[in-house]
Amino acid sequence: MLDFFSLIREDLGMVESEIRKVVQSRDSLLTKTSLQLLNAGGKRLRPAFALLAGRLYDADVEKLIPLAVALELIHMATLVHDDVVDDSMTRRGTPTVKANWGNKISMHTGDYLFAKSLVLISTYKEPLIAELLAKTSVKMCEGEIHQISTAYSANQSWRDYFYRIERKTALLIAASCQLGAVAAGAPAKDHKRLGKFGHQLGMAFQITDDILDMVADQRELGKPIGGDLRQGILTMPVIYSLEKSPRRERLRVLVEIREKTEDQVKEAIELIKEAGGIQFSFEVAQRYIAKAKNNLKYLPDRPVKKVFEQIADFIGVRRF
Amino acid sequence: MLDFFSLIREDLGMVESEIRKVVQSRDSLLTKTSLQLLNAGGKRLRPAFALLAGRLYDADVEKLIPLAVALELIHMATLVHDDVVDDSMTRRGTPTVKANWGNKISMHTGDYLFAKSLVLISTYKEPLIAELLAKTSVKMCEGEIHQISTAYSANQSWRDYFYRIERKTALLIAASCQLGAVAAGAPAKDHKRLGKFGHQLGMAFQITDDILDMVADQRELGKPIGGDLRQGILTMPVIYSLEKSPRRERLRVLVEIREKTEDQVKEAIELIKEAGGIQFSFEVAQRYIAKAKNNLKYLPDRPVKKVFEQIADFIGVRRF
Repeated sequence: MLDFFSLIREDLGMVESEIRKVVQSRDSLLTKTSLQLLNAGGKRLRPAFALLAGRLYDADVEKLIPLAVALELIHMATLVHDDVVDDSMTRRGTPTVKANWGNKISMHTGDYLFAKSLVLISTYKEPLIAELLAKTSVKMCEGEIHQISTAYSANQSWRDYFYRIERKTALLIAASCQLGAVAAGAPAKDHKRLGKFGHQLGMAFQITDDILDMVADQRELGKPIGGDLRQGILTMPVIYSLEKSPRRERLRVLVEIREKTEDQVKEAIELIKEAGGIQFSFEVAQRYIAKAKNNLKYLPDRPVKKVFEQIADFIGVRRF
Repeated sequence: MLDFFSLIREDLGMVESEIRKVVQSRDSLLTKTSLQLLNAGGKRLRPAFALLAGRLYDADVEKLIPLAVALELIHMATLVHDDVVDDSMTRRGTPTVKANWGNKISMHTGDYLFAKSLVLISTYKEPLIAELLAKTSVKMCEGEIHQISTAYSANQSWRDYFYRIERKTALLIAASCQLGAVAAGAPAKDHKRLGKFGHQLGMAFQITDDILDMVADQRELGKPIGGDLRQGILTMPVIYSLEKSPRRERLRVLVEIREKTEDQVKEAIELIKEAGGIQFSFEVAQRYIAKAKNNLKYLPDRPVKKVFEQIADFIGVRRF
């Protein structure tokens, strides 16, 4: 757990044991597959955001837990399905559901985790909670399909990239921040503001994720680096370098190779680094973080506001 | 469209064009994959049940359409995912999403259809609608996993079979009947009664489905017969025959073969027919239908009640 979550450490502990309780099924296999990813750990960022947002408005933690759990379940569902699509064998340093039980079981495990989140969401009276999460889920699917249909294509625009990372990451983080406040009964102008904060922070989070995929320490990352390149996913450092690199033609060739050798992946990363793709992306992430933080001044002054700021800063410099 | 749906033909037409509208995405591929299954046709049984149940309480059709559309989208989502799990290349006589676009796109198409249903469901104020559909979705996943983990095993009980068909089929049909009445503002004792009706009818529907998989005309069925046997799914005719057939040891061997030849499938079906497995299943289905119809006498006397009766009778004798 990250240090600045100390203020909500206890609440996050409740979320953790609640997830564990919620995924229990009459079917022991389903319980096992659901716990596989949960046991691999994770930052629980989405529950944390919901809890912090709720704390800004002094909400009872009981009011926030089902939402926080539902957000993590939705996130987990997408990860389990992503691992099928990406043929990923490890995540967070442990075997994926796909690796241990194959595609079919993974698909239904993802469906199950998602359905479980709906049971929790259905306990809320605020109609915005179910509505926003439904709309977010639709857009997340659109983002995934876009990622598949543009894979290995060097002909894509900044717009394609931003379309994807918004759907892949930013929208669910935005919903986490906004809905924590909604569940806490915050006024509309405040929860919308938190949604904006989460959106910009989510964009920065995905950009740093894309950077880490190229420069991280493999052990800290929990998976091999260069994964995006191998899967043909064009991230910001690549798109920038395809425009600016003096060796962009070579990079284009490398990017479009479907079965890259280790050497080709390394070469592509070197070209991207030389072209300044990492540095540029880092600066864009910093700009999103600054924009995100700017929203905070419109929100109530509570100790948790400081935590939101710290998380924002952390996202800009994170190494895992 | 089935004849006795004439009373709601117009409403079903609205459902059809509404589904078509709802699945439109900014992503043209996603629109195409979503329409693939829709264009293959289908009985639209779940929307029909919801519309008929609502009509029993004089509901405005506008109040029922989003629910009816959502029910068909949930059903479609499970079919698209099932085709991945079952490696099915045709459904309703046309290529599946899986056949045309592969597993990854199919998984996200299913997720997308399901997410779209949630957007519609979130427009209802009655909390029972989201709650019951969420719980039903959880159980449907449990049923699917159970089907995978018991595949090709001749050691299973009647309980295993009933557990599966309830989750696979009966619960969503029950929800369709019950929630049409809920959306129409029917009293609790009535919508619960309709839920019971739908549950029993759904059990009968799945049993006749299982029978048809062995005896139907392949063209009418829209897919090759013996599919369940090939996929290792043990249905009522098989479970009965494994108990009663004088040649049950041979049947057990055939059932557990993972890659059956055409001749082995045929031989198994012959053994099942000889053992009376089809006849027995037919009788059980009839009993469910009689039980289902018995619920109707507690419901308001409206012209649509007659339609519910006709559907129940049809399910007992259907050939497709």
